[in-house]
Amino acid sequence: MGEFELIRRYFVRANAPRDEVQLGIGDDCALLNAGGSLAISTDMLVEGRHFFREVAADALGHKALAVNLSDLAAMGAEPIAFTLALALPHERAQDDAWLSDFARGLFALADRHHCALIGGDTTAGPLAITITVFGRVEPARALRRDGARAGDDIWISGTLGDAALALRAMNTIRSGQHCPPCHTLLARVRHRLERPEPRVALGRALLDIATSAIDLSDGLAGDIRRVLERSRLGAEIALDRLPISDDLASQARATAWRCAVAGGDDYELCFTANPQHRTAVEHAAANADVRVTRIGRMVDAPGLTWLNAGESVALDVRGYDHFSA
Amino acid sequence: MGEFELIRRYFVRANAPRDEVQLGIGDDCALLNAGGSLAISTDMLVEGRHFFREVAADALGHKALAVNLSDLAAMGAEPIAFTLALALPHERAQDDAWLSDFARGLFALADRHHCALIGGDTTAGPLAITITVFGRVEPARALRRDGARAGDDIWISGTLGDAALALRAMNTIRSGQHCPPCHTLLARVRHRLERPEPRVALGRALLDIATSAIDLSDGLAGDIRRVLERSRLGAEIALDRLPISDDLASQARATAWRCAVAGGDDYELCFTANPQHRTAVEHAAANADVRVTRIGRMVDAPGLTWLNAGESVALDVRGYDHFSA
Repeated sequence: MGEFELIRRYFVRANAPRDEVQLGIGDDCALLNAGGSLAISTDMLVEGRHFFREVAADALGHKALAVNLSDLAAMGAEPIAFTLALALPHERAQDDAWLSDFARGLFALADRHHCALIGGDTTAGPLAITITVFGRVEPARALRRDGARAGDDIWISGTLGDAALALRAMNTIRSGQHCPPCHTLLARVRHRLERPEPRVALGRALLDIATSAIDLSDGLAGDIRRVLERSRLGAEIALDRLPISDDLASQARATAWRCAVAGGDDYELCFTANPQHRTAVEHAAANADVRVTRIGRMVDAPGLTWLNAGESVALDVRGYDHFSA
Repeated sequence: MGEFELIRRYFVRANAPRDEVQLGIGDDCALLNAGGSLAISTDMLVEGRHFFREVAADALGHKALAVNLSDLAAMGAEPIAFTLALALPHERAQDDAWLSDFARGLFALADRHHCALIGGDTTAGPLAITITVFGRVEPARALRRDGARAGDDIWISGTLGDAALALRAMNTIRSGQHCPPCHTLLARVRHRLERPEPRVALGRALLDIATSAIDLSDGLAGDIRRVLERSRLGAEIALDRLPISDDLASQARATAWRCAVAGGDDYELCFTANPQHRTAVEHAAANADVRVTRIGRMVDAPGLTWLNAGESVALDVRGYDHFSA
């Protein structure tokens, strides 16, 4: 099977794309008109770095798009379309089951968000997936990182740290250690690592309510610092208020904190809002069917302060960095 | 140097981006408003597949953007902005000279086309570069692949086959053969492989003149077939009219034809136009400062016929295919 047959067989679909898509797959460029501003983000997943070789192909298809939709969610943008650049080892390019599963996972998520594949590139190479997503948002309403104000509450969607917990269990198992509890734990939290759910509905519901937002991909400790830098503020965050699952709560406290604060791969939203809007935030979250938790507040004094039972705690954690880790 | 310092040092620039860029690097998404339709294309370059490890970094930066701008050119679109997803081996991520050179080559071409870097992603991994470009074009005027009409002339910009000739010389040298003429030849044509010039001005000048266009990335033989498929027509192409350089003309005829017809990496435009517009085409080319050559015509009967001195010639060539080659 050649390159063009592969694209035709797995990635060109008969169903009509969205009205915004004026020209889809098959020409030198796609043509897209969103009738205003486009929110654009791009993320690349690389085998051995973002995922292991043995990951289920449908989970990989899901995650490659999910991490990009998560960026749209963090701007409050409505997904419209995406492009896919795919580097495949030769054996994968001939593996019908793998390609079918990958496409199934990808399009299942795309369809839920009415997000059309409008173009791409396929090449031989070490497995890597770059997706670029396009969403619609009014620029004045977009949830930027620089909009937080001193005194704003800091909120988190869902729970933190289960993806990191899954990765720990996976690494223990991959290292060859005999660890029956790791298998049990992994079975419970693996989906949080491999099938993150982009908080698109929440991001949309938070327009005109939240003052800033970011999606948590590298861990709260690293990602919140980007909001602080852009908003030129500091923050106090209560470790004992961080929303974590029962699975993570059953770990040693140091492990739980480390996973929740520095784990990465959560793809939850961290956002700020004026305390006057607490009810509005709760309503938005209920409408989006997502739990939200207030974990701290923005302060004038620069720097990030971790609190436990109201007392400052020294915590030596950083967000994930691809070239320092 | 960490991931974020790397981005800040090499890829965030102080100069103001274009008016269309409402929000650039530094948030979850960029915000772009082109005031109408966007032409969008994405291309991925992978080490060992699209380029050799020893390629000059500035040439690589140039080419990664050039192959994408070439897709905009083939739609007649005006470049506006691009995103960059970069997977870097650890040693490259710490190599200041390499990164500086890569960024210099990239931005030199971007600046010539007033094309702003608006976002991206950086990760560790085998060297791979995905760029997604955004351009402006009126959909009704865009140069699509499906617009060719029977009787239209087929035109080519520049010359064909020198990139393939450079690759042949490079492969001979890399294989360890003693070949002084290969070095001489490579010195003359290497820039055609490593520094393709996207025909953006020509594409713009051909709006309302050309009926279809495609950029030649996989070789004329393969790429023209995509126009035939989309336009549901056939074509006759005169091998003895193909525009080739003196360097390629000095090769054996079989080599010259093979490079010109199936070589790939030319990044010239192949376009069709009504014969009434020959003068208009010549004017457009002169304004864009690019040579154009009429190489054949579109016909009703399906299939591609190669001619030499007016006689049909059997030529067993295909375009480049990443999974069949």
